[in-house]
Amino acid sequence: MNPALPTKESETRLIALDWGTSSLRAYRLGADGQRLELRALPWGVMQLPDAGDGENAGFEAAFEQACGDWLKAAPTTPVIAAGMVGSRQGWREAPYLEVPLAVAQIGGSLASLRNRDGQLIHIVPGLMENSQLPNVMRGEETQVVGVLSLSAQQDKVADILIGLPGTHSKWVQIRQTETQKEVRHFDTFMTGEVYAALCGHTILGRGMSAADSSNGNAQRDFERGLQVAQTPAGQAGVLSTIFSTRTLGLTGALDGSGQREYLSGLLIGHEIAALHGMLQSQQRLPAQIMLVGEAGLCARYVQALRCYGFDHIEVTQQATERGLWQLALSAGLLHPDSST
Amino acid sequence: MNPALPTKESETRLIALDWGTSSLRAYRLGADGQRLELRALPWGVMQLPDAGDGENAGFEAAFEQACGDWLKAAPTTPVIAAGMVGSRQGWREAPYLEVPLAVAQIGGSLASLRNRDGQLIHIVPGLMENSQLPNVMRGEETQVVGVLSLSAQQDKVADILIGLPGTHSKWVQIRQTETQKEVRHFDTFMTGEVYAALCGHTILGRGMSAADSSNGNAQRDFERGLQVAQTPAGQAGVLSTIFSTRTLGLTGALDGSGQREYLSGLLIGHEIAALHGMLQSQQRLPAQIMLVGEAGLCARYVQALRCYGFDHIEVTQQATERGLWQLALSAGLLHPDSST
Repeated sequence: MNPALPTKESETRLIALDWGTSSLRAYRLGADGQRLELRALPWGVMQLPDAGDGENAGFEAAFEQACGDWLKAAPTTPVIAAGMVGSRQGWREAPYLEVPLAVAQIGGSLASLRNRDGQLIHIVPGLMENSQLPNVMRGEETQVVGVLSLSAQQDKVADILIGLPGTHSKWVQIRQTETQKEVRHFDTFMTGEVYAALCGHTILGRGMSAADSSNGNAQRDFERGLQVAQTPAGQAGVLSTIFSTRTLGLTGALDGSGQREYLSGLLIGHEIAALHGMLQSQQRLPAQIMLVGEAGLCARYVQALRCYGFDHIEVTQQATERGLWQLALSAGLLHPDSST
Repeated sequence: MNPALPTKESETRLIALDWGTSSLRAYRLGADGQRLELRALPWGVMQLPDAGDGENAGFEAAFEQACGDWLKAAPTTPVIAAGMVGSRQGWREAPYLEVPLAVAQIGGSLASLRNRDGQLIHIVPGLMENSQLPNVMRGEETQVVGVLSLSAQQDKVADILIGLPGTHSKWVQIRQTETQKEVRHFDTFMTGEVYAALCGHTILGRGMSAADSSNGNAQRDFERGLQVAQTPAGQAGVLSTIFSTRTLGLTGALDGSGQREYLSGLLIGHEIAALHGMLQSQQRLPAQIMLVGEAGLCARYVQALRCYGFDHIEVTQQATERGLWQLALSAGLLHPDSST
């Protein structure tokens, strides 16, 4: 630490934005990336504030609300943003980087723009795997960087699987060697969005009542669904097995809230069964699995992973802000004493 | 034919109702089950006409509109109905028959009711297979009876597979011997309803424009989707592969209408791949496949079946009215000279 520049605990070192489709989260981070303040705003890329006709007026206004005062108080603070803000529909496109790639490359490939006040804003690129069925992510790459910075097995040679359950689950295969960490491959499962569409817009939702955790059977019904993909009947695949949500209601085996739990288990079970099958046939079963996401959802996935024979599972928190901090660090945006 | 009862070509022999969730089709059938008249009404079991508060007033009014005049003109005509009209939410519940069962049993198990005019109405029961993942059908059993009456291979010992693509596809395994035909097993795939929910209520629909058959690539894009389930990437299962509808749009490989065709092919391909896998592991690959359904949809399924190694596929028409006729016949409802 430079004694001429005394570090206050509360001093802003980085403004980090997690800017997705439907929300904007702004972090004010201090020394070592410690969170000093968090603001959650509804200004996702697809629902910006109405701020007149100027070019990017919505982005400008949202940015001003998110951190304008922080920048006034500490004008030299670097700013970094990840998520859909870097998509073609975003503020400035940060082109996809191609997988496989070394994780360290991501921080070296930030895009940037200046807002109307001349403030420089760095934008994290998403990742694309341009295989037969191409795959993309935006925002999750930052969580991956964050998770890896938290991993206990920093130096061991290992295959690490990072799971990011959500509307679209991502499963990211990392190969860690003594010298680097590489993103080798990733898969997307639309499990969360399919679940919502089935409950809200198909016959399966008709028999469901609001989830009632008080009946005590939620766990049993979820587990029943979880098993399906590994039974002979599960061979029929998810387009077929989902119909049992309704028929088990007709036969009285599941009540309304039970049908909801069962379908959740059934879909997650199919996801994890397919994931296990692929990793096995690629001979890439991981030494360690790290999950990031909403706590309740992660608990469901931990159960599913155990059910399908995975172990060494760890649930981590605050991956986005850790990732943004790490990326700013590797991009050289942080003042030399920031990481002390 | 009894010479004392001369048969007129136009004489009504059976009134046959195909009464589903969202529509009611009334057939006036003559000698040999020939169709003399068809009425299509919007009075499905879930959307009956508003006809006051009397018990079953909606059913009574819909029935009167569908065939009241036919019955006035020919009061002794028997009436038979199939579909959701026999469900718990229908006019009179016709309890499910359990699979496996001989096809001939269905006609011997009709439920019945009298309407407010004292007219007897016979109702066809649905089928249930109460296995680990129970399965039900209502209405399709009548199509199965109709298809089998049209089958060329009437007497050969054979495994026949009957496919009824639609909102919920049914695949019905029939074992035919010299003495009887047996429904052994059936599967349901919610392919049509899932397709509609994905197009209408997930991110996959956002990049789709209305299907434009004029671009000439529809067939190519459909086929591309069809292949997916049999590629290594298809192992990830449908919750994962559907995401490629979007990413192939992002990479420019599919335009808006192409995404729609591709997703259709992808889902049908997963359905048929799973069906083939199950039949193979059960050692029940059929000698013949008979398809019933909307012509354009059947054409898609014929292509999918060929793609996954099935052959001897026949598309049949008018299965519902043939089935209702056959069931009335085997139930003894038809006058002795009706079937001449």
